[in-house]
Amino acid sequence: MYGRYTQELGVYAKEEAARLRESGQRRSVTERSRALDLLEYDKGRCAKCRICTVRCQKFLISRVGEDWIFLILLGLLMALVSWVVDFCIAICLQAQKWMYGGLDSNVFLQYLAWVTYPVVLITFSAGFTQILAPQAVGSGIPEMKTILRGVVLKEYLTFKTFVAKVIGLTCALGSGMPLGKEGPFVHIASLCAALLSKFMSLFGGIYENESRNIEMLAAACAVGVGCCFAAPIGGVLFSIEVTSTFFAVRNYWRGFFAATFSAFIFRVLAVWNRDEETITALFKTRFRLDFPFDLQELPAFAVIGIASGFGGALFVYLNRLIVQFIRKQKAINRFLMKKRLLYPALVTLLVSTLTFPPGFGQFMAGKLTQKESLVTLLDNRTWAKQGIAEEFDYIGHSQAWKHPQVNVFVTLVLFIVMKFWMSALATTIPVPCGAFMPVFVIGAAFGRLVGESMAAWFPDGINTDGTIYPIVPGGYAVVGAAALSGAVTHTVSTAVIVFELTGQISHILPVMIAVILANAVAQSLQPSLYDSIIRIKKLPYLPELGWGHHEKYNIRVEDIMVRDVRYITLNCCYRDLHNVLLTGHLKTLALVESAESMILLGSIERAQLQSLLSQQLGRPRRLEYIRERAAAEKKRLSVVSNTGSEDGSQRTSQEVRFQISTEESSFSPTRPTPQKPLKPALKRPSVVERPTEIPTSPHDNSGIALKNLFCASPDTEGMEEPPANLKSLLGDDGDVEDDMTIREIAEWEENQLDEQVNFNNCKIDPAPFQLVERTSLHKTHTIFSLLGLDHAYVTSIGRLIGVVSLKELRKAIEGSVTVKGVKVRPPLASFRDSGTSSSENEVTELHKLWDRHKSMSLPREHTPSESDEKSQ
Amino acid sequence: MYGRYTQELGVYAKEEAARLRESGQRRSVTERSRALDLLEYDKGRCAKCRICTVRCQKFLISRVGEDWIFLILLGLLMALVSWVVDFCIAICLQAQKWMYGGLDSNVFLQYLAWVTYPVVLITFSAGFTQILAPQAVGSGIPEMKTILRGVVLKEYLTFKTFVAKVIGLTCALGSGMPLGKEGPFVHIASLCAALLSKFMSLFGGIYENESRNIEMLAAACAVGVGCCFAAPIGGVLFSIEVTSTFFAVRNYWRGFFAATFSAFIFRVLAVWNRDEETITALFKTRFRLDFPFDLQELPAFAVIGIASGFGGALFVYLNRLIVQFIRKQKAINRFLMKKRLLYPALVTLLVSTLTFPPGFGQFMAGKLTQKESLVTLLDNRTWAKQGIAEEFDYIGHSQAWKHPQVNVFVTLVLFIVMKFWMSALATTIPVPCGAFMPVFVIGAAFGRLVGESMAAWFPDGINTDGTIYPIVPGGYAVVGAAALSGAVTHTVSTAVIVFELTGQISHILPVMIAVILANAVAQSLQPSLYDSIIRIKKLPYLPELGWGHHEKYNIRVEDIMVRDVRYITLNCCYRDLHNVLLTGHLKTLALVESAESMILLGSIERAQLQSLLSQQLGRPRRLEYIRERAAAEKKRLSVVSNTGSEDGSQRTSQEVRFQISTEESSFSPTRPTPQKPLKPALKRPSVVERPTEIPTSPHDNSGIALKNLFCASPDTEGMEEPPANLKSLLGDDGDVEDDMTIREIAEWEENQLDEQVNFNNCKIDPAPFQLVERTSLHKTHTIFSLLGLDHAYVTSIGRLIGVVSLKELRKAIEGSVTVKGVKVRPPLASFRDSGTSSSENEVTELHKLWDRHKSMSLPREHTPSESDEKSQ
Repeated sequence: MYGRYTQELGVYAKEEAARLRESGQRRSVTERSRALDLLEYDKGRCAKCRICTVRCQKFLISRVGEDWIFLILLGLLMALVSWVVDFCIAICLQAQKWMYGGLDSNVFLQYLAWVTYPVVLITFSAGFTQILAPQAVGSGIPEMKTILRGVVLKEYLTFKTFVAKVIGLTCALGSGMPLGKEGPFVHIASLCAALLSKFMSLFGGIYENESRNIEMLAAACAVGVGCCFAAPIGGVLFSIEVTSTFFAVRNYWRGFFAATFSAFIFRVLAVWNRDEETITALFKTRFRLDFPFDLQELPAFAVIGIASGFGGALFVYLNRLIVQFIRKQKAINRFLMKKRLLYPALVTLLVSTLTFPPGFGQFMAGKLTQKESLVTLLDNRTWAKQGIAEEFDYIGHSQAWKHPQVNVFVTLVLFIVMKFWMSALATTIPVPCGAFMPVFVIGAAFGRLVGESMAAWFPDGINTDGTIYPIVPGGYAVVGAAALSGAVTHTVSTAVIVFELTGQISHILPVMIAVILANAVAQSLQPSLYDSIIRIKKLPYLPELGWGHHEKYNIRVEDIMVRDVRYITLNCCYRDLHNVLLTGHLKTLALVESAESMILLGSIERAQLQSLLSQQLGRPRRLEYIRERAAAEKKRLSVVSNTGSEDGSQRTSQEVRFQISTEESSFSPTRPTPQKPLKPALKRPSVVERPTEIPTSPHDNSGIALKNLFCASPDTEGMEEPPANLKSLLGDDGDVEDDMTIREIAEWEENQLDEQVNFNNCKIDPAPFQLVERTSLHKTHTIFSLLGLDHAYVTSIGRLIGVVSLKELRKAIEGSVTVKGVKVRPPLASFRDSGTSSSENEVTELHKLWDRHKSMSLPREHTPSESDEKSQ
Repeated sequence: MYGRYTQELGVYAKEEAARLRESGQRRSVTERSRALDLLEYDKGRCAKCRICTVRCQKFLISRVGEDWIFLILLGLLMALVSWVVDFCIAICLQAQKWMYGGLDSNVFLQYLAWVTYPVVLITFSAGFTQILAPQAVGSGIPEMKTILRGVVLKEYLTFKTFVAKVIGLTCALGSGMPLGKEGPFVHIASLCAALLSKFMSLFGGIYENESRNIEMLAAACAVGVGCCFAAPIGGVLFSIEVTSTFFAVRNYWRGFFAATFSAFIFRVLAVWNRDEETITALFKTRFRLDFPFDLQELPAFAVIGIASGFGGALFVYLNRLIVQFIRKQKAINRFLMKKRLLYPALVTLLVSTLTFPPGFGQFMAGKLTQKESLVTLLDNRTWAKQGIAEEFDYIGHSQAWKHPQVNVFVTLVLFIVMKFWMSALATTIPVPCGAFMPVFVIGAAFGRLVGESMAAWFPDGINTDGTIYPIVPGGYAVVGAAALSGAVTHTVSTAVIVFELTGQISHILPVMIAVILANAVAQSLQPSLYDSIIRIKKLPYLPELGWGHHEKYNIRVEDIMVRDVRYITLNCCYRDLHNVLLTGHLKTLALVESAESMILLGSIERAQLQSLLSQQLGRPRRLEYIRERAAAEKKRLSVVSNTGSEDGSQRTSQEVRFQISTEESSFSPTRPTPQKPLKPALKRPSVVERPTEIPTSPHDNSGIALKNLFCASPDTEGMEEPPANLKSLLGDDGDVEDDMTIREIAEWEENQLDEQVNFNNCKIDPAPFQLVERTSLHKTHTIFSLLGLDHAYVTSIGRLIGVVSLKELRKAIEGSVTVKGVKVRPPLASFRDSGTSSSENEVTELHKLWDRHKSMSLPREHTPSESDEKSQ
């Protein structure tokens, strides 16, 4: 059995390959001949012109497949999107200022205007996103990280999400709340890439390749950051650090190319719009070049780094704490869940009340927008001039920092403290928003604070060699910004982003030192903000191996693997299949030669097995059985009495014959020779409508159909309803009378279950990833993250002895790595994490259905998809 | 048979694991108890102090294992090395200038001084390197790329190589030839890391982990670039691009940390040495910040990029051409091989003659060193001021560019052309040297040329909006430098290096655009310089998948795999083993269940099989056989006549017993229960000395011993000679008389070969990497480079149907990727590529030995290692 089976599949695969290749050749031949036909047809008039056109067309179409065209289009598109979004945000903010400024006669009206405007915008953003595509909520970087690991998140890369994200983001940022655009832009760029890929696939086939799409998504992430900050290099590096665990260097140029082009167009648009004279940095600084800083200032920079590390960890912790608090308070939670838009509105109200410039806002430069704050913080003049010029003229926006009664230090401290919790709170609002920019501004303010203190402490600079080089607090702000954003995101490349944003690289060493120190501190205290969100949202992930924990080298796979592997054998019967499917919840099952030898032959997807089962027990098969029985009956009858109305019997036999031919064309026979690849067959929700017919059935096995009902539903979610032709086909079947009693059905199913499984039609992965029991945890982690594995079998010379999945690996790593307070596994489901159904959910769902069915209640049609809709 | 065997190995592995872990625990327990003993011993006086000391000591030792300590040490060391090397080079160059300046009375003497100095230095460098460690020759980046792919290159990471590289490099650069220090510094840093690792392993066990060492080597490469240019970010990126195909992001911080620390120390040393006032960039520029360039200058930058692309490809081609030319000209080659130092001396003579300042050198700024040229080229003043100020004062080094008769444009063109071929020629000299810096300078000169032309063309700048912004030729020089070096090395990160080197990032967009265009052009024409060297040196490599060749998605593994796989079956006899080993040359062999089923069970290393064979046919076994035969004989004799001298027989029997006990302790019995892991057994050159005893043997099978002789030698190369105790052991064996005739030996071996192989003692890899026949070339390439594979088996549901090795993959990729003139496979062995013996060589060597043996000549002892020495 085994040998035959093996060889059959090999032969099958080869034939299939040959067929595919042949058809490809044939197609190109027909194309060529068509072109020739075309030529001959028009031979009379301007044949040369025609030839030229055809060639050009062919050339263009062939070039469309090239990567660089795709990347240029992507870069162009994202630059436009970024510019338009920025433009709209600027208009929104101006409108708020204008309203606030116009009502300066009445403070109360001013307050109303100041507060209502953001509340309305945020509420609109939250509502719009919620209605159109709830997946657009939040940063998007955690999801992209998961997607780039190879996990398919439904609905995350659709056009709807794109629209929701862009509009939602514009409104959210237009409100003036402390929110950022970086994270969402990573998501938007990926959406762009996915949609563009879909669009381009109309021209060439290459866009359907999955691994290519993943590479393009990685490039898109770089574009997202690049066009957001006009920082191509920092964009590429940041996106690599934030989304990948292993990075293909051959993918590098893609990111650079697209991000550079995008940043270029983004800045050129600004020049064309007369905002800028030429292409320069977004937040250009003008620090002196000759003597950027003294060696003796380095301890201050190091202090900024270490403090930022603690601050970053605190920010991540605070953010998570707020989410958890809101979830745990059931009363609040229930209330907020009911009025989804209340939470955003309340938060916005609170934040904007506190920043109201005539109120508390005067002590924290409340009237400055985020961008304005950053520009003033990076200013190269010193605010706290002691001695010489007390009445330093704060020109432009800088005057917001000056308060007649209050010292500039107090303003800065208040700004930092207030913005800190405000940002942590604001980023929990369910709108499309990032946390990078707010954190960046806070960091800059902190750096400025240290810098101003240093300037006050050493008014003439530290250097003792004659020349006076006063201290530049703006440089400290740059260092602080890079350090705090680096600490929150656990990245080093914020340093590069800072250089590109300010257009100056003179502070490279202080920035690098501070960023590295901040990272060291933050990484040992908390996960990164994105990892924290991943854990809160319960996305499938694999924690990083952090700063040199060498005990990981001593843990082996055999210590963490699950020894009780669910497997199926080559010669099992459908009942075994049924039992395995009911008890386990792994997505793939191991196929072994026999329970004794346990030699691993391959792995089969759960869905494949489900379709096998449904084919075996499905209605079509049963109808066929009925027909066969009827035919046998008829034959028996015709033997007994041969006196019926002849044309009537002819009609029925015709009908039956018609039915059978339909059957054969749509459903594969039970034990056929190998046919087409089975993927499309999987999508047929062939038995969806059956449960309504057999409302009650006391027997175990008739419930399988119900299970099939469930099993088919995850696939049908993608496509809205079963294809029309299939439906009509199922409708046609109604002609044959389903006159079996429940007992008969149960009996029939019982018999069907005892048959041996025929794997011929099943897609088997013949080389699932295998590990040896002595593989170290370190190596396992490497392999899992390199190959984006979900699970791996542990074998000992061909014999299956265990399985390791992401879950076990995660546990093992966290067990050895986590020090304190990081294992966040909130018990309640978030109202933010819709769209990703975990496999555990599926199982409980299945059991629920099962129990309900057992207790004889009426199962409704499409129950799972309904409950799915509700959860969104 | 199969089941039992399988289970046995599993059990064995588990026992082994338990044993190891237990011993680990025991060790820690004993350590603790020892500490306690210590405490009790000194209880009387200052016990607390003792406790404190012990704890501190333990803490320190445990901390030594931490990554960051290692990285700090590495960074510190490399910064010191870099600084000292720079210092020595500066002194050397100053000495030359001083000599040249002091002899200005006589041009001939001047010429002699100018020429002799570099010739002596280069010759010394070449000779010194050749004698101490020929592996130190050249850049080192190609080798590091190979090592990081997982290939072990002998002698590349030893202390000798370190010394040779550092001293050789200092002398080579001190000569003033157009050579660079970047590539060698990557190698030096890796050497440092490897040596430091070895040193640190005295303190903690973690340093013995192989995957950790690879990660540290990757970080070391970053340090090398970082401390060479004081460019931490660019260093990390450049080293990633140049050495890796896939990069672990978790390794990222290591590189950044070490490179930043190293660059910091490197620059701090300069400050302490009073060279600099504070920490700034190496080649600081002072371009204006407000308006760095006009949008309309971008086409000029693009032109620089494209031209640099062609130039870079030409450089690589030229470099290879020179190497090939010298190799192909057999007469020249033979001559140069004889006088190894002649070639470097001649090249140096030629180059320094041409740069002689009073001679041709006056037209190409010949008296400037590389560093001075770069500083002047990056100057922010315009040289070619038309109209206004013809008599522009070239202060400082800039005056070298001014010639009374000749235009500055002519000087620049001459400089570019001459330096171009000089650099290409100079980098073929067998001294430690890189090509990055020369190329960088040429690029800067080219950029300057374009910039000066633009400045001459638009004397008032291009901008039309009132303000006059003159064109900055220095900016063009920056762009040109980045573009050309990017084109030659196929990297984008030269852009970042340029920013860090100049301390200005204002030209980011032009630089990025030029670098990307240069890369696009160069990558489509030629391999990178490092890949070119890899091919010339025939190092094992895997070509990159370049700019979007989508035909690769359509090639499948089944199209390229080798179907005729060498395999061994579970129940094969030693004769099969012997035949397989003789015919094939793969490093590992597949183990299948049986020739009929072809189910892949695992793979076995060639060396393992060789040791199995040698154990089976080795002298010890034969002696045992002789002893057994003798014992049987004696028994027979004692039965026949019981009248011998009693104490004599007692003596021999004692002797024999002693022999047997020795045997058992050193060599495992033929069919024992599973014992220790076999790695150490592999290293025993147990049969090295045997061939001298059986000089002639007409029969096939007695030749196996000879084969063993050869097979053992690659292992013994590493260790200078067999361990003393083993030697004495073999010597002891001499006590038993080897009285078998050749015919008897042949017969005995014949019998031995017919026995079934016992795999119990053999290390089997139970999960070799498997692919499916339909895997695409693209995916195969990804997996190979991700996991650093050497080969993978192609299976079809457990059945072995083919094998793909690096060679096939390489062929397939080059077949589809290479456009023209790249497939360089020089037929002659280089005099530069010593130390890496290819497997093909081994095979021919084997056959040669075999033939020689057949023709009854006397095989010499240690033949392979002798021939190996000769090739070095």
